Amino acid sequence: MNSRLKFLLLNLFLLCSLSAMAQEKINIGEKQAISSAILNEKREIWIHLPKTYNDSSISPAKYPVIYLLDGEINFEYYTGMSDFLARPPYADMPECIVVGIKNTERTRDLTPTKSQKKSPVNPNVILFGDSGESENFVRFIQEELKPFISKNYRTQDYSILVGHSFGGLFAVNVLLTHPEYFNAYVANDPSLWWDNKVLISKTKSYLEKNKTFPAHKFLYVSQANNEEQNKNWNSEMTQAIEEFKGIVEKNGSLNYKHHFFESEVHGTVSYPGNYDALKFIFKGFRTDIKKLSKNPQLLEEEYKRFSEKAGSNFTPSETYLNVVLKFMKSNDFKESEDYFINLKNSLYPKIK
Amino acid sequence: MNSRLKFLLLNLFLLCSLSAMAQEKINIGEKQAISSAILNEKREIWIHLPKTYNDSSISPAKYPVIYLLDGEINFEYYTGMSDFLARPPYADMPECIVVGIKNTERTRDLTPTKSQKKSPVNPNVILFGDSGESENFVRFIQEELKPFISKNYRTQDYSILVGHSFGGLFAVNVLLTHPEYFNAYVANDPSLWWDNKVLISKTKSYLEKNKTFPAHKFLYVSQANNEEQNKNWNSEMTQAIEEFKGIVEKNGSLNYKHHFFESEVHGTVSYPGNYDALKFIFKGFRTDIKKLSKNPQLLEEEYKRFSEKAGSNFTPSETYLNVVLKFMKSNDFKESEDYFINLKNSLYPKIK
Repeated sequence: MNSRLKFLLLNLFLLCSLSAMAQEKINIGEKQAISSAILNEKREIWIHLPKTYNDSSISPAKYPVIYLLDGEINFEYYTGMSDFLARPPYADMPECIVVGIKNTERTRDLTPTKSQKKSPVNPNVILFGDSGESENFVRFIQEELKPFISKNYRTQDYSILVGHSFGGLFAVNVLLTHPEYFNAYVANDPSLWWDNKVLISKTKSYLEKNKTFPAHKFLYVSQANNEEQNKNWNSEMTQAIEEFKGIVEKNGSLNYKHHFFESEVHGTVSYPGNYDALKFIFKGFRTDIKKLSKNPQLLEEEYKRFSEKAGSNFTPSETYLNVVLKFMKSNDFKESEDYFINLKNSLYPKIK
Repeated sequence: MNSRLKFLLLNLFLLCSLSAMAQEKINIGEKQAISSAILNEKREIWIHLPKTYNDSSISPAKYPVIYLLDGEINFEYYTGMSDFLARPPYADMPECIVVGIKNTERTRDLTPTKSQKKSPVNPNVILFGDSGESENFVRFIQEELKPFISKNYRTQDYSILVGHSFGGLFAVNVLLTHPEYFNAYVANDPSLWWDNKVLISKTKSYLEKNKTFPAHKFLYVSQANNEEQNKNWNSEMTQAIEEFKGIVEKNGSLNYKHHFFESEVHGTVSYPGNYDALKFIFKGFRTDIKKLSKNPQLLEEEYKRFSEKAGSNFTPSETYLNVVLKFMKSNDFKESEDYFINLKNSLYPKIK
């Protein structure tokens, strides 16, 4: 063997060792880049697949998709949270794909109108000069990002949009302008004060014209206890969120939850808000495995009820049915076990 | 070039491409194996380093360590949560290293005494045969795992033990038998019913002998709303947790918080419990950056107060000081900026 060959082999060996070590890393997703013609720029997105996505022991399943704004800040806790909440047998929600969108020009993308504001700390500084292009950004999500995700991953036709602050403003605006784009919207401490409360006016106009929100849509709004609310623009923020709440609750046609977090400020409220939001959106999804031992058909009844409420068809996952079957078997509930074997075979027929 | 060489080069090229793709994965930690002489087995641990751990723009810092039981279930959301909670300028807690411990024989490791129980579902089944070796397991953590972590990572001498169910039982038992091992203990819906409530007796004996708990120790206990509590062993669980609460609160010497979660069951309570626990343990850690503009020395006062309460010395991190400096500079608070430049230079002197 010549020395050049030896050198190459040594390199090969080192690379293999490195790649073996890399397997010991704990991965929660991957970064991908999309060239957006609408935004005329490359966008980085972070994609998390749920635990069972590549489980070859079950039939390939389809998953709802959560679109998460400010991806670089929220992706890591959000994906851990949604996976934990989807764990059988205590699953509060279905397993979901999470798509985090990283910012480039945040204010430009998330605000609905062009507006400016003098800095509350120093009036010589003009804030938010580059703003008002949220319609482009939502077109990017709807016409470029969603098709990319659906093409490359197994998706169920159910999606949620999650945002905080300007991202919450954006989520509310999408609900008002394109309610059909998502099934549920999450707005954490949304900046509804934006541009003289332009979204409050828009909400009023929307309801004057349409009378009600479309059926089966969900909106969750969290509100922080901004200590500084009496000092600067947070006062406007609080007032606008409360005005919006009044209008939506009075109308009464939207599946709406508002929650005020006493011990959170603007920068911390997303975390408990996102948890509470998923509990709200998927309320009725969790089934009690113990009750199924006596009353196995309850499972399909509850999924039917939940699907009607959510406006999309949800079925028990094969993973969940496997947990149910294990429970019935180990506790000798023979009739229920047979029932769920049949249900599993009908929902997930194995090709022979 | 001969064909063998070409083949090798092709392989090299492919490996390099794979390794470039691997960089696009989102990693939150790595798995390591420790050979334990005490347990006579190899143990897998999952290690998460905080965001700034490898930031070469700041001086190498030391970090508190959180030891997380049932690592394989809790690691992913817990690390996302602790990082999010530690984000400046809203940091509710310091950045921490998280060490998840994966189970092998869970019941053996986490229970303090040998005990058995007839299955509440089928009395012919005897549960928990292999139990009662928690003293070995805590020795593994204290004498093998902690030195391994301190040797390989930059650790501050401050640690937290976090457990759920049997893991909560374990945490309470360590507090009673080796209170000096950790600064704070988290017990989510702990199985204090274990072995005829052996830990209730132990708590009583401990307080008869010592009168009070050691200073600066923290214990957080969450309690789930177990719907089935009147049907099987969860009734004992509820009663035991409440009895323990009564004893500890009456004694009054422990930094103790108990929280009942109305809408959580045994399998879901860890998630909000762990969040609430960190907020409790690190209460007083968060500082208000706006107040610092007028009163810069407030920062050291608050850190001093918190350090005294926690029984360990905490100082503002360099990352936090950089955020404070940026805020002072951009808002033209010149005096405060100078103050924090001096503080940063004294805490983190740059070698010239």
